[in-house]
Amino acid sequence: MSYRQNIQLTADKNLKHFLSIEGLPRAMLMQILDTAETFSSVGERAVKKVPILRGKTIVNLFFENSTRTRTTFELAAKRLSADVLNLNIAMSATSKGESLLDTLSNLEAMQSDMFVVRHAQSGAAHFIAKNSPEHISVINAGDGCHEHPTQAMLDMFTIRRHFGDFYPLKVAIVGDILHSRVARSQIHALTTLGANEVRVIAPKTLIPANIESMGVHVYHDMRKGLTDVDVVIILRLQKERMGGAFLPSVQEYFQAYGLTEEKLAYAKDSAIVMHPGPINRGVEIASSIADGPRSVILEQVTNGIAVRMAVMSMTMGSYSAPLSTDQSLSANKRGASS
Amino acid sequence: MSYRQNIQLTADKNLKHFLSIEGLPRAMLMQILDTAETFSSVGERAVKKVPILRGKTIVNLFFENSTRTRTTFELAAKRLSADVLNLNIAMSATSKGESLLDTLSNLEAMQSDMFVVRHAQSGAAHFIAKNSPEHISVINAGDGCHEHPTQAMLDMFTIRRHFGDFYPLKVAIVGDILHSRVARSQIHALTTLGANEVRVIAPKTLIPANIESMGVHVYHDMRKGLTDVDVVIILRLQKERMGGAFLPSVQEYFQAYGLTEEKLAYAKDSAIVMHPGPINRGVEIASSIADGPRSVILEQVTNGIAVRMAVMSMTMGSYSAPLSTDQSLSANKRGASS
Amino acid sequence: MSYRQNIQLTADKNLKHFLSIEGLPRAMLMQILDTAETFSSVGERAVKKVPILRGKTIVNLFFENSTRTRTTFELAAKRLSADVLNLNIAMSATSKGESLLDTLSNLEAMQSDMFVVRHAQSGAAHFIAKNSPEHISVINAGDGCHEHPTQAMLDMFTIRRHFGDFYPLKVAIVGDILHSRVARSQIHALTTLGANEVRVIAPKTLIPANIESMGVHVYHDMRKGLTDVDVVIILRLQKERMGGAFLPSVQEYFQAYGLTEEKLAYAKDSAIVMHPGPINRGVEIASSIADGPRSVILEQVTNGIAVRMAVMSMTMGSYSAPLSTDQSLSANKRGASS
Repeated sequence: MSYRQNIQLTADKNLKHFLSIEGLPRAMLMQILDTAETFSSVGERAVKKVPILRGKTIVNLFFENSTRTRTTFELAAKRLSADVLNLNIAMSATSKGESLLDTLSNLEAMQSDMFVVRHAQSGAAHFIAKNSPEHISVINAGDGCHEHPTQAMLDMFTIRRHFGDFYPLKVAIVGDILHSRVARSQIHALTTLGANEVRVIAPKTLIPANIESMGVHVYHDMRKGLTDVDVVIILRLQKERMGGAFLPSVQEYFQAYGLTEEKLAYAKDSAIVMHPGPINRGVEIASSIADGPRSVILEQVTNGIAVRMAVMSMTMGSYSAPLSTDQSLSANKRGASS
Repeated sequence: MSYRQNIQLTADKNLKHFLSIEGLPRAMLMQILDTAETFSSVGERAVKKVPILRGKTIVNLFFENSTRTRTTFELAAKRLSADVLNLNIAMSATSKGESLLDTLSNLEAMQSDMFVVRHAQSGAAHFIAKNSPEHISVINAGDGCHEHPTQAMLDMFTIRRHFGDFYPLKVAIVGDILHSRVARSQIHALTTLGANEVRVIAPKTLIPANIESMGVHVYHDMRKGLTDVDVVIILRLQKERMGGAFLPSVQEYFQAYGLTEEKLAYAKDSAIVMHPGPINRGVEIASSIADGPRSVILEQVTNGIAVRMAVMSMTMGSYSAPLSTDQSLSANKRGASS
Repeated sequence: MSYRQNIQLTADKNLKHFLSIEGLPRAMLMQILDTAETFSSVGERAVKKVPILRGKTIVNLFFENSTRTRTTFELAAKRLSADVLNLNIAMSATSKGESLLDTLSNLEAMQSDMFVVRHAQSGAAHFIAKNSPEHISVINAGDGCHEHPTQAMLDMFTIRRHFGDFYPLKVAIVGDILHSRVARSQIHALTTLGANEVRVIAPKTLIPANIESMGVHVYHDMRKGLTDVDVVIILRLQKERMGGAFLPSVQEYFQAYGLTEEKLAYAKDSAIVMHPGPINRGVEIASSIADGPRSVILEQVTNGIAVRMAVMSMTMGSYSAPLSTDQSLSANKRGASS
């Protein structure tokens, strides 16, 4: 039982913070998916609102700009009837020379209940959770190159909706594994949930040194790596990596690693294509695939709201789907995290 | 029946989008005014809220900055109990290279119910409506030099409150007709609602070539143009038009076309003065008139909220005032749009 | 009865605007504290919300940027169930050349109920209150070097919680008295509430000329000024005052006026330390004191929300704690403002 597990869970093993997939047992990930399932119908109702977090104060603490992620957290909070404060910290009190911890102390003194944190530094959300008082829950909305756990869980939710179970699945993650917090969270989630095989496909310059220790297989060739997979996850290529030491050019990248019909043909006929967005058409993915019948990219966005509602509700101790006996047994048998 | 009418109305002739006055029949404009009438008391209550759009997600998609218009739409939405997301698109995901259609697809996947769109390009709101799925309504909050239909309807609401009926009225619109989306929407609304006479008054450089085909009379002289009118609508002079090919100077413009007591004396004694705001005092209107007893400029602002509540409620299929038999008959007899 | 008292109170002596502590009688300040007391439990409930201002429209009119103050007003308004509009006026319609009064007229026409105003010019909130119609209440969230009355009242609330009564207390205010709207409001509040002695401690360059007329004692030496006090209020040192005519350097300032354990030892053992935030650690206060057992800085933040809820509720005529007979008698006997 790691340090991280301790800080994310309460003494009686309920979710207190949601900071990383690493350190959470399979049963907990399944409970998040089950809870999200109960929320997924809320978005389809005439009145898209449940009173679960009414009167709670949720602060979006974004040290990095991100309209899309902030928006989905804001919508999730509003559909749970919480009050939301959006703070763009880069532009606020810290510019008056106040320290991060003083800013946090002040927000806590305002009786906030939850911080949703995005920060360019790995470990920022853990640091904030460790330094927050008992009554605050912290959710990591992306920290540096470390983790982006709600993104991984919405991906798992989307996969489970399509295939029902993780055990038989072969999943390939394609792109800049080296810098991707999304990929790290996905790999932890897939191995914890017991996927048959997890592959990463990228040029050598974009693969971290000891990646095999996370339980994945490394490929540098798209056709080999995609052969027989059930799920293809394409990562966004950050433009700022281009043209330097990491990558030659957009054209050469698309040639070698961009997902095209020809390369996708190596995957199973039933394979689905995922992408965390926003997509670069013609860079990491061809438009015909992004808009095609195997793409589930927009389903991921929809599912993201249900998953974020689930994590918010669970960390606040307000509502969780029941832990199934089967799931906790499974966790004992095969759900060990790397 | 034009293409535009098709896209704005459902198969059974209810309002689905509100993109332009052009293409809407008289009965529909009257129904909007009647619905706004039922909402106009909400702003005077102790609790300025009705639960009509509770649990709906309305996105303010502003590609052009506009605090005033955004604020009135936000207030209208909140008084209908909807949840509002404000997105300043110029500063968000599109800056990461995402296409407009991908941004829209993502907002749709978040189960948004309505887009309120302001954009510098004519036709942007139509484009977005055409490319949105069935469950989304789009409201045009101003597109380039094309239309600004909620502004025109709040003007019509204000006129009807003062005069009861449109048939006997002579209305003059003064200012930069060439670039004004407000003027275009007002002309369509006034001719559709059957105003006796619609005049435009401006220097030749600010009148579009084929304006008479819209059913208006053109004047270049304020005194002649204002003679005997019931309603004077002053447009805002965009400062950026000044000093170039269009206009000589602010002083000369005020001399020739600025509304003063002396010029207003040519209108009827009962005439009212309107302006969409924000006003440039001493440029297009003298302060004594803007603040005087014939000015209804602030009534327009108040009415703007009721009209926006009406359009939001109607396009969502949530509440409309009944279509009066008289009105639909009138529409058949005289309500043809130009 | 001064001009300011007239504008802040209704004909029957209820709070209409909250613009300055100067001009308010002791009984009114006590009623604000009593009302805040009834709201202070709201922040500790599971559902931090009361329906007192449901359906009201509150506009945060911030002409100066301030995330912290805006946030506490926004939270106070939301916990009273009001709808909040945040307007950063520096960046909005005024940039289109609209006058301040026209911007206000428009917000009034939108049926706003309250303006919370922060402005760099002294007297701005008074000016706005004087020029607003009957149904609008104005709250001063800081105007130039004049007053910041909600800050002073949250300080009084914190002091009363710790000591029960003001009569026996000696209070020292340390720092840039010359430019501080916080200090001015605190001095008025403390003298009106009958504190035994109010001292100001600062270098000569940071003390206004006629400060003794406000009923305070001036000290230039920290050790003498702090001797035997019950409450030490440290002001924030504005960095922009440094290095010019007012102050030599940060190091010399801390040496002479920074609050250290050694200097604080001159105060009573039971003394508390206050600061309006954000704090400059090592400039006006040592970290060991800011984080130490005598610091009530974070209590001030928490109390700020209850005090702002009280002032909002009272000015709207929605809820006030009863005026105690004792308090109004006290006001007659000793509550005279300077």
